[in-house]
Amino acid sequence: MSTELEFKGYAMTDPTKWSDFKIISFTPKTFLPSDVEIAITHCGVCASDVHTLCQDWGTAKLPCIPGHEIVGKVTKVGSEVTEFKVGDRVGVGAQVAACLECRECKDDYETYCQNLVWTYNHQHADGVSTMGGYSTGIRVQERFVFPIPENIGSAEAASMFCGGLTVFSPLVTNGAGPGKKVGVVGIGGLGHYALLFAKALGAEVYAFTHSKSKAEDIKKMGADHIIYTGDKDFAVPLKRKLDIIISTANDAKDMPLAEYLSTLYVHGKFISVGLPSAGEAFPPLHPFNFISNGCLIGSSHLGSKKECLQMLKIASEQGVKPWIEELPMKDVKKAVEAVRDGKPRYRYVLVQDINQ
Amino acid sequence: MSTELEFKGYAMTDPTKWSDFKIISFTPKTFLPSDVEIAITHCGVCASDVHTLCQDWGTAKLPCIPGHEIVGKVTKVGSEVTEFKVGDRVGVGAQVAACLECRECKDDYETYCQNLVWTYNHQHADGVSTMGGYSTGIRVQERFVFPIPENIGSAEAASMFCGGLTVFSPLVTNGAGPGKKVGVVGIGGLGHYALLFAKALGAEVYAFTHSKSKAEDIKKMGADHIIYTGDKDFAVPLKRKLDIIISTANDAKDMPLAEYLSTLYVHGKFISVGLPSAGEAFPPLHPFNFISNGCLIGSSHLGSKKECLQMLKIASEQGVKPWIEELPMKDVKKAVEAVRDGKPRYRYVLVQDINQ
Repeated sequence: MSTELEFKGYAMTDPTKWSDFKIISFTPKTFLPSDVEIAITHCGVCASDVHTLCQDWGTAKLPCIPGHEIVGKVTKVGSEVTEFKVGDRVGVGAQVAACLECRECKDDYETYCQNLVWTYNHQHADGVSTMGGYSTGIRVQERFVFPIPENIGSAEAASMFCGGLTVFSPLVTNGAGPGKKVGVVGIGGLGHYALLFAKALGAEVYAFTHSKSKAEDIKKMGADHIIYTGDKDFAVPLKRKLDIIISTANDAKDMPLAEYLSTLYVHGKFISVGLPSAGEAFPPLHPFNFISNGCLIGSSHLGSKKECLQMLKIASEQGVKPWIEELPMKDVKKAVEAVRDGKPRYRYVLVQDINQ
Repeated sequence: MSTELEFKGYAMTDPTKWSDFKIISFTPKTFLPSDVEIAITHCGVCASDVHTLCQDWGTAKLPCIPGHEIVGKVTKVGSEVTEFKVGDRVGVGAQVAACLECRECKDDYETYCQNLVWTYNHQHADGVSTMGGYSTGIRVQERFVFPIPENIGSAEAASMFCGGLTVFSPLVTNGAGPGKKVGVVGIGGLGHYALLFAKALGAEVYAFTHSKSKAEDIKKMGADHIIYTGDKDFAVPLKRKLDIIISTANDAKDMPLAEYLSTLYVHGKFISVGLPSAGEAFPPLHPFNFISNGCLIGSSHLGSKKECLQMLKIASEQGVKPWIEELPMKDVKKAVEAVRDGKPRYRYVLVQDINQ
């Protein structure tokens, strides 16, 4: 590797061929004193990447280099950076900057900052388009760079920075721990993390799945109970049992939401972290669906740096191992198409191959 | 009054004439050692009464004597009753019994008990139909009887036991107090209580109303801000400002719910205590409506005895005065029809006139 990082990545350039990528060079953002520059070694493939490529959430900026589950080595640090030095192994998730001055940022809700910058398909403060982790390098505000504990492999760590943190945050925010019963809806990439972390936090875990073929996996991941949502009246025996449900389901409109809500204890919370296409609303909800147990439904968006460090500590201390499959980055087409078809068991991680 | 209470009440007997009442005699439930018998002096008129009479929530049991905002004098106490004695002035709300043994009851969530008994249009454990407060007397399990502080008038106290408690409970559950911003949607019976109690708890209060004619009243009730929901972009200046919204709106399907949710700060809560007709769902909700601020929507059901005593203490100490209009009980037809038409400013209280 030369001393100066060359910025190249796998880009989608034509939305009519959403899974066709070609390697392009790109200009990174202006390097600021608070920035960390990273040579990327690994990047997880998130359903968000596919939603963006397929324009499910609106028109993507072109060219589009997705990827926001990034691991790499620090190549340069700005003069104000205190947490990192060149050579450190670090991670980056779905956000690369925030104002750090608003109420949200000061409350450790920096992922809710109204001036945040997404890792890709967005724009840096200097006007440069953000480019994600299917690439050689990235420049990120220090707050959004995370140190990786030594005993967590780079491929394992990568998908924690979006998939892991997205479920870890609502678990801790809503008190998952010993004595609590946590339901997890949808055992895919995010769902398998929700199982692993809910167990690591000490909760009793109920896995909801419509796929009996995943039963063995789910047991191995440590779920205490498996509930098949295709079974008639599946929710009845669980009435008022659960304290929290983390729903990773991407098919909001078809989910048996009223049944899920009925499984919550008083003031229990159903937190949806799946983000379906823009046109897919939840099934109709009536106040009656909430009143018998005073339950709540809501969402959660990524997680703070504080929570990310807590997640990494727990993963390190308890040996939380995500179920991943590594692919060379050139197989990105195969990876995104497989994610579109729900095939990963349970997360793909692309390994750097540009210039190597 | 004879020493034995005569049980008579204003009953609806023909659902095709929902607001026609006639005085009937009825048999009270078996008097148990844990029961308190009360000679009713006042009863508030709640929108629930009208929903029940109009069969909005399903078929009403006939004859139907509504009313669950009850004040009266104790006429008899069971051998196990320790909190009350004959002659005490007490209140009763929308519930008259619970099992007191389940997890909910033990957690002070007795209003979520799965074996609860409603004050009317329901059935006691002995099979006798429950009859509400538009009547001379009622028998109630001690847990659901509340002592009234001396400086709160009987007419003022009556509507606190449903209308007041229904909004007080989610206010305290969700941390309303100094430094918190509370929105109240719909300034009717429940909404005016939400304003009064949110202020009494020390919160900054935002009143949402579509009725400019209520502005003067709302100011007098102590709201810090009035927002007209008919104004274009009414929610924009409030983006991310509120910690809690208590919605008393009964017209769920037409409410600008996405706009309300946008006014919530991170993890803010929209608690709906209005209960529209069974067919009226909330407007369609997409996970996108929740994700930008990680907010939640839910409901709340009455409030515990613990919360009721706290509410009465605050009302007593801070002189919280509901805005009520007293009517003789014989004017019940006029009262329920006016409630149906949204006329009360802001709660009717019926005063006993049977046998008097």
